[in-house]
Amino acid sequence: MIPEMMNAIVKTQKERGAEYKQVPVPKIEPDEALVKIHAAAICGTDIHVYQWNAWAAANMEKAYSGLPRIMGHEFSGELVAVGSAVTNAKVGDRHMCKTGDSYNCQNIRRFKNGIYAEYAVVPAAALVKLPDTMSYDVASVMEPFSVATHGAGMVRMVGDTVAVVGAGPIGLFTVKIARAMGAARIFVADISEFRLDLAKTAGADIVINSSQTDVVQEIKQMTGGLGCGTVFETSGNAAAVKQAFQFLRKCGAMIMTGLPSQPIVLDASDDIVWKAAKVFGVHGREIFTSWEISKGLLGSGRVTVDDMLTHRFKFSEFKTAFELAEAGLTGKVILHPDALAQ
Amino acid sequence: MIPEMMNAIVKTQKERGAEYKQVPVPKIEPDEALVKIHAAAICGTDIHVYQWNAWAAANMEKAYSGLPRIMGHEFSGELVAVGSAVTNAKVGDRHMCKTGDSYNCQNIRRFKNGIYAEYAVVPAAALVKLPDTMSYDVASVMEPFSVATHGAGMVRMVGDTVAVVGAGPIGLFTVKIARAMGAARIFVADISEFRLDLAKTAGADIVINSSQTDVVQEIKQMTGGLGCGTVFETSGNAAAVKQAFQFLRKCGAMIMTGLPSQPIVLDASDDIVWKAAKVFGVHGREIFTSWEISKGLLGSGRVTVDDMLTHRFKFSEFKTAFELAEAGLTGKVILHPDALAQ
Amino acid sequence: MIPEMMNAIVKTQKERGAEYKQVPVPKIEPDEALVKIHAAAICGTDIHVYQWNAWAAANMEKAYSGLPRIMGHEFSGELVAVGSAVTNAKVGDRHMCKTGDSYNCQNIRRFKNGIYAEYAVVPAAALVKLPDTMSYDVASVMEPFSVATHGAGMVRMVGDTVAVVGAGPIGLFTVKIARAMGAARIFVADISEFRLDLAKTAGADIVINSSQTDVVQEIKQMTGGLGCGTVFETSGNAAAVKQAFQFLRKCGAMIMTGLPSQPIVLDASDDIVWKAAKVFGVHGREIFTSWEISKGLLGSGRVTVDDMLTHRFKFSEFKTAFELAEAGLTGKVILHPDALAQ
Amino acid sequence: MIPEMMNAIVKTQKERGAEYKQVPVPKIEPDEALVKIHAAAICGTDIHVYQWNAWAAANMEKAYSGLPRIMGHEFSGELVAVGSAVTNAKVGDRHMCKTGDSYNCQNIRRFKNGIYAEYAVVPAAALVKLPDTMSYDVASVMEPFSVATHGAGMVRMVGDTVAVVGAGPIGLFTVKIARAMGAARIFVADISEFRLDLAKTAGADIVINSSQTDVVQEIKQMTGGLGCGTVFETSGNAAAVKQAFQFLRKCGAMIMTGLPSQPIVLDASDDIVWKAAKVFGVHGREIFTSWEISKGLLGSGRVTVDDMLTHRFKFSEFKTAFELAEAGLTGKVILHPDALAQ
Repeated sequence: MIPEMMNAIVKTQKERGAEYKQVPVPKIEPDEALVKIHAAAICGTDIHVYQWNAWAAANMEKAYSGLPRIMGHEFSGELVAVGSAVTNAKVGDRHMCKTGDSYNCQNIRRFKNGIYAEYAVVPAAALVKLPDTMSYDVASVMEPFSVATHGAGMVRMVGDTVAVVGAGPIGLFTVKIARAMGAARIFVADISEFRLDLAKTAGADIVINSSQTDVVQEIKQMTGGLGCGTVFETSGNAAAVKQAFQFLRKCGAMIMTGLPSQPIVLDASDDIVWKAAKVFGVHGREIFTSWEISKGLLGSGRVTVDDMLTHRFKFSEFKTAFELAEAGLTGKVILHPDALAQ
Repeated sequence: MIPEMMNAIVKTQKERGAEYKQVPVPKIEPDEALVKIHAAAICGTDIHVYQWNAWAAANMEKAYSGLPRIMGHEFSGELVAVGSAVTNAKVGDRHMCKTGDSYNCQNIRRFKNGIYAEYAVVPAAALVKLPDTMSYDVASVMEPFSVATHGAGMVRMVGDTVAVVGAGPIGLFTVKIARAMGAARIFVADISEFRLDLAKTAGADIVINSSQTDVVQEIKQMTGGLGCGTVFETSGNAAAVKQAFQFLRKCGAMIMTGLPSQPIVLDASDDIVWKAAKVFGVHGREIFTSWEISKGLLGSGRVTVDDMLTHRFKFSEFKTAFELAEAGLTGKVILHPDALAQ
Repeated sequence: MIPEMMNAIVKTQKERGAEYKQVPVPKIEPDEALVKIHAAAICGTDIHVYQWNAWAAANMEKAYSGLPRIMGHEFSGELVAVGSAVTNAKVGDRHMCKTGDSYNCQNIRRFKNGIYAEYAVVPAAALVKLPDTMSYDVASVMEPFSVATHGAGMVRMVGDTVAVVGAGPIGLFTVKIARAMGAARIFVADISEFRLDLAKTAGADIVINSSQTDVVQEIKQMTGGLGCGTVFETSGNAAAVKQAFQFLRKCGAMIMTGLPSQPIVLDASDDIVWKAAKVFGVHGREIFTSWEISKGLLGSGRVTVDDMLTHRFKFSEFKTAFELAEAGLTGKVILHPDALAQ
Repeated sequence: MIPEMMNAIVKTQKERGAEYKQVPVPKIEPDEALVKIHAAAICGTDIHVYQWNAWAAANMEKAYSGLPRIMGHEFSGELVAVGSAVTNAKVGDRHMCKTGDSYNCQNIRRFKNGIYAEYAVVPAAALVKLPDTMSYDVASVMEPFSVATHGAGMVRMVGDTVAVVGAGPIGLFTVKIARAMGAARIFVADISEFRLDLAKTAGADIVINSSQTDVVQEIKQMTGGLGCGTVFETSGNAAAVKQAFQFLRKCGAMIMTGLPSQPIVLDASDDIVWKAAKVFGVHGREIFTSWEISKGLLGSGRVTVDDMLTHRFKFSEFKTAFELAEAGLTGKVILHPDALAQ
C-alpha cells in the first residue's frame, strides 16, 4: 500500500530553484510516524531556501547535513504507519505538526527531511491530532498561525490602537488575532497593494502603502500624535523597523517577529529609554499555550483563515507558486500532492 | 438660568420605596462642578437602597450621614457651573463620571448626594469628558461597563471557554467584553429567561436556566468534563457561587464581582487548593486603565451596548422602572429627567 | 552488587503505623532507573498515611492499587542501574527527584512504590542531577522547597509585609524564600512554640502563638490596621484559614498551600469581593520554573535550609521520627538507611 | 523667620560651571509649599547641566524658560510654609520629594526652579512625608533609588543570574535591590575601580573592569556559556549597551535605564528576535508602586544605602563635589546648605 518511490520538491543545488523528482519513500524509526501529506504551506524561510540567498546559505549549512534535501516544513496529513514505540497516534489519524521545523531551535529535534513530498517521516512527539472540523489546508498553517498567536500573547490589545508592519502571512494572521482580541483600531503598513487589500479583508481598519506614504506621519496624525500602543514588526526590513519605533506610543509594546537581515541602527535613547518602551523578540512559540489558543480560536470559528489562503498549487507547479509568493502577490500559499489535488 | 428648585428621586424613609419631589438645587464648592443630568442608570445597589434590605441598611448607615438623600450614582450630563479652582472642565462640556459613588471605597471622596435629579454636584476630579460620538445614555453606563472591563482584565480569554454566572447588567457587559477579547465559547447561567435571551443578544453561545437545569453537569458535559477556564461570578447568589467553583477548570480563574449576601461555604481543599484555582475579588476598577479600555472599546464601536439598554423611563416613572428591574425583566434601565425625556 | 532483598518501611495495614521489614529489591523497566537511597524526608502526607486518617484512606485508595506499599516520596540517592532506553542519566550519578509522588496529580506518572527503602525504582524522566555542592540531605527536600518556591512565585513580596500561617516545613521554607525575595516584614503564626522558634531562625520578624494570642488583632495592630499584603496559608486548619483572610490587606494576595481537611465557611463578600483579594490555590509546582529558582537559591547559597532539617533518624527508628513530627516538635525530618547512617 | 535672601548654586551661563550666590527666597502659590532644604543629591543629569554638554543644551532649552536657574532636583527638607489650599502637609513636617524634576516628563508639573538652595518651592502634590527613622541624607536619594526599584520591578530575579552594567548610583542601588530580591549571582561591569569596589560593598559577587577585560567572554564563561537572565544597562555607553545584549541569555530581560548619548547599532536579528529577548526602557517610575516598595525596603532596614553615600559637601564646595563625581570617584554625593553642614 505504501509505495517504494514518491514525488517530492527537492533542493539539489546551492543555487536558486529546486527540482520536482522521484525519491524513495523514507522508513520510520520506532518513535516516528509516516505521514501521507495532504497539504503543505510555503513559509518565508522556504522562499529563502528556494532563492538560496545569504541567509539560507548561512543557516541551512548550520542546521542540516547538506543537500540534496526535500524542502518544506509546514504540513498536515494522515498517518499511514507508526513506529513500535508510538503511543500517542495511530494509523488513520489526521494530523498536523506541532513544531514546524524551525531551522534554528536548539532543543527541538529536527525533521530529518522536508515535507514537500507525498510521504514524510516525523517524530511522533511532534504530532497533533486534527479537530474533525478542521480542513487539511487550514491545519497546514497552524504552525505559523501559532507564531502569530504567541507574539500577540505578549500584550493585551483590548481597546487599544495597534499597528502591524508587514502584511505577509504572519502579519495577516496577526491582524486576525488582534481583531479577535479586541484591538480598537488596526493599522497595517506594507509595500504591496495586493497584501494591503488582504489586510483589509483580514480586518485592518486603515492600510498604508509605505512606499508611497510617510507612515510615521500618517499614523501619528491619525492617533492624535500619540502613536500606537502595540506595534507588531513582521517585515524584518531595516527601514520599516526604524519607522515602527517612531510610531510606537510612549510606554507602548513593540513585538518583533520579522528577522532583520541587516544590523539596525536604533536611537535607543529616544526610541526605547525615554519612551519607556517594551520590546519583545519573538522566536518560536510556547508550544503548549500558543497551540491551545490557536485551536480555541480556529476550532470555535472565532477566527477563520481560509480567506488568507489565497493560492493553491500542485507540487509540480511549485515554481509558479514560489514566484508569486516572492513577488508579494499572495497570502498564504498551499501546495498539494498532484495525486490529491483537485 | 439655573433654577432654585429641582425634581429628584429622594430616599426619605428607612423602608421600601422613594419619593419624587422638589428639592433645592445644590451649591458648588471651588473644586466642584454642577452637572445638568441628561441620563442616569439603575445599578444593583440602587435596587438594594430602593428595597431598603439588610445590605442597604447596613451599608448606607456606614457610608452616609443619613436620610433624606437623593438616590443614584451612575449618570452623564452637561456642566452648567464650575467652581473657581476647577481647571479640567468648563461650562458646556458634556461629561460622565469616572468613579460612580461606590458606596464603600475608602479612598474616593464620596458624592455629597445622589444624582437622580435635574442637577447634581460632583467633585471636578471625578469628571470625564464624553467623546463627541457617545450618547448620554451610553455614557451613563460607562461606570458599570468599566467594572466589567476591570474584572475581565484579570485574565486572558482569547481562545478559551468562559462562563458568566448571572445575566444582570455586569454579566451582560462581561459577555460583550469576553466576546471582544476572543473567548472561544461563552456559557451564561441565570434564572430569568428574559435575561438569558439578552445574554444571547450580547453574544453568549450557550445559555442555561439554572432553575431548570443542573448547570454543573451541563457545562462539564459540554466541555469534555474539564469545565471552564474562566468563570465570572456576577450573581452574588450563594448557591450559584458554589456551583461556579465546581465547573471551574483545574488551574482556572474565578472572577467574583457579585456580592454574596450571605456567608459561603467553600470546599477550599477541592475547589481552590487541589484545583490550583486563581480567585479574584473585583471591587471597583483601576480607574485609569479600565476607563481607557472601555473608551477604546465603546468609542471604536468594537463593542456596542445600546442593545443592553432595554428600558428608558422618566424620573417620575421611577417606581415602574425599579419594579421591572427587581423582577429581572430588564437589561440596563436608563432614567431621564422628565423635562428632557422624549 | 545489588542485593536481592532490602529493608523498607512498609504500610501493611489500613490502620495507624507501619512495619520495618525485608522486601525484594525491585526490577526496572527500560525507561526507569534504580536508585540507592541516601536520604529521605517526611512530608505531611506521609504523616497522614502513617496515621491512616480519613484523608489517607480516601486518597490512598484512589491513587494506588492498595497495600502493602512502601511509604515515602521525597528522596535523593545514587543511580545503581538504568534501563536500556534511559539517556538522561547514568550509573553513579547523584540524583534527586523532580516530582515527588504527589499522591494526586493527574498527569504525572506515579511512582510504583514508595522510597523509604534501600533501593527504589523511579521513572528516568523524573530524575534531576544533583549539583556537586549539594548534600543528599538538602537534595531530599528540594521537592517541598520547590512547592514553597512555586507558591511564592505567585506574588512579589519585595518591600511588602508578609504573613505565613503555619510553621511546618512548607511554612518555614516560605519564610526563607520570602526573606530572600525582599519581604520587608514577616509574621508567622503557629501553635507550636518549637516551630515558632524555628520560624525565627528561618528569618521571621514576629512570631505569634495563635493558641494564646488573637492573631487577627495582633497583626492588624502591628500593620497600622491594614493587614498584610501577602498571606501564605500553609496550615490547612479551618479556623486559621478564616483568620488569614481577616488579616489580609485590601487588594492583597492569599496563597493557599495547606489542604483544609474540612469545608471552610468564608464571608466571600467581605473577605474576597469587597477586599478585592487575589486567592491562589497552590498545588504542585511548575516543574521547570520552580526547580530552576530553587536550584538558583540553594545552589548559590542565598538560601540555606540545613538549619530547618532539625532531626535525622535511621529507617529503623521511624516510629520515633513520625511521633515527633506529629507532635509539632520538628522542622523537616530526614531518614537514612541504617547502613548509611552515621 | 524666613529670610528674604538665600544662598544657592545657580546655573547662570550656557557653559561649564555654576555660581554659588545670593538669590531671593521664592514665594509660594496656594497649592505649593516652601521647603527648608536639609540635604540635596547630585544626579547624572545635574552633572550634564554642570558640564553644559550637548544633552544639557538640547534638553534644558526644551524644558525650561532659560537661565539663570538654580540647579538640582533630588532633595529632602522641612516644610516652613504651606499654601492656603494645601491639605496633605503642614509646617514642621519632614519631607522628601516624590517626583524629582525629571527634566522631561510630559505629565508631571515641573519644579519652577532647582533645589540646590536653602529654600525651595515645590507643588504640595509632590511631597512625601518622611518615616521618622529615615535620615535627611537617605531621604534625598529616595527618588533615584525608586528609579532603580522601578527598573528592577520589570523582572523577577529570584534565583537568577544578573548583570549590572555601570556602577554609578543607579547601578549601585540596583545591585542592592537585586540582592534583596534574591538574585543568585550578580555581575557588575564598569571602568572605574573605585565604583567596582563600591559595587562589591553593595553586594556584587563578581566585578569586571570592562576597560581591561573582555566582559562578554568573561560573563559567558562564568555562566556556562548561557549569559545572564537579567541585564540592567545603566551606563548609557554605546559600546557597553552592545556588549550587554551579547551576554544576555536567550529569553532574558534587558532593562535599559542608562541614556545612550548616541545612536546604537543593534543586530536586532541575533540580539532581540532570535534571542527572544525582552527589552524594557525605563524612564521615570510608577510613582505609587515604586515608592511604596522603596519605603518598605529602606524603612524596614532590608536595604541600607548609607554606604553608597560616599561623599558629603557644603553647597559652597560644589565645584569639588561635581569634579569628583565627574571623575567616577564617588558613589552618591550629598550636598548640604552651609549653615546646616557639620
